[in-house]
Amino acid sequence: MPIRPALPKDVPSILALIRGLAEYEKALEQVRATETDLLQSLFCENPQVFAHVAIAEEEVVGIAIWHLNYSTWLGKHGIYLEDLYVKPEHRGAGFGIGLLSELARICLQRGYERLQWWVLDWNTPSIDFYRSLGAVPMDEWTVFRATGEALRHIAR
Amino acid sequence: MPIRPALPKDVPSILALIRGLAEYEKALEQVRATETDLLQSLFCENPQVFAHVAIAEEEVVGIAIWHLNYSTWLGKHGIYLEDLYVKPEHRGAGFGIGLLSELARICLQRGYERLQWWVLDWNTPSIDFYRSLGAVPMDEWTVFRATGEALRHIAR
Repeated sequence: MPIRPALPKDVPSILALIRGLAEYEKALEQVRATETDLLQSLFCENPQVFAHVAIAEEEVVGIAIWHLNYSTWLGKHGIYLEDLYVKPEHRGAGFGIGLLSELARICLQRGYERLQWWVLDWNTPSIDFYRSLGAVPMDEWTVFRATGEALRHIAR
Repeated sequence: MPIRPALPKDVPSILALIRGLAEYEKALEQVRATETDLLQSLFCENPQVFAHVAIAEEEVVGIAIWHLNYSTWLGKHGIYLEDLYVKPEHRGAGFGIGLLSELARICLQRGYERLQWWVLDWNTPSIDFYRSLGAVPMDEWTVFRATGEALRHIAR
């Protein structure tokens, strides 16, 4: 399975796939990222976000966008997968698991003990797939988010 | 409110508070982090995890351990707060909100639009506090985690 770290030339394709995933999540109007944003974030001097791509016939057909998280209990980093997406017409060919496997290998190489990602509760095909791999839902936990007015309120 | 970025000399106190939080979360036996782990993670050349401390009478009484995440929709980083903890005997004095405010200010200074953290579903005092600040639970989402055998399985 041809999986490799993303290169600057992949950025237009990566943005197209980010938009594809947002459309699937019914949130296309919320995508404001530009090619410049992605270039800067992924390929600056000390990037804190990373991307891998899946290639078929020299075309980017899948992406994994990830960063490090940290377990204070383990005293170690882990990998947090922010976006995993494969073009609909390339599903079922192993690109999704190929990308996930690559990240799991990076974890093992670096001694990280956790690979995490989050899933929309209604996305049962993905949930079934992740459960079949042995991944466990962290059902006890809820993520809170502060944006806009709340963020400014908290900053006071 | 005396809040500042952590210094290497704070590491023993930070670890004591991490253990305090784990005890509150009924998981003390899962803490394997050492002072060396924390020193290395927080104070290496290009750290990917950061800490702020709250100080009372020259003692560390609260900690916020955080890292960057990334929104592919916004094309921007945000802050993910991994651990927020204040010693029980120092609660109610504003240290918790002081730490959270400092992170919100860092977000605003850097143009990040999101501050996120997660909470145990049974921790209603914290949940009520976060809601009162205008933070929103991402109820639609569940985090999946692969560790141990599942991680090795996925890496194959």
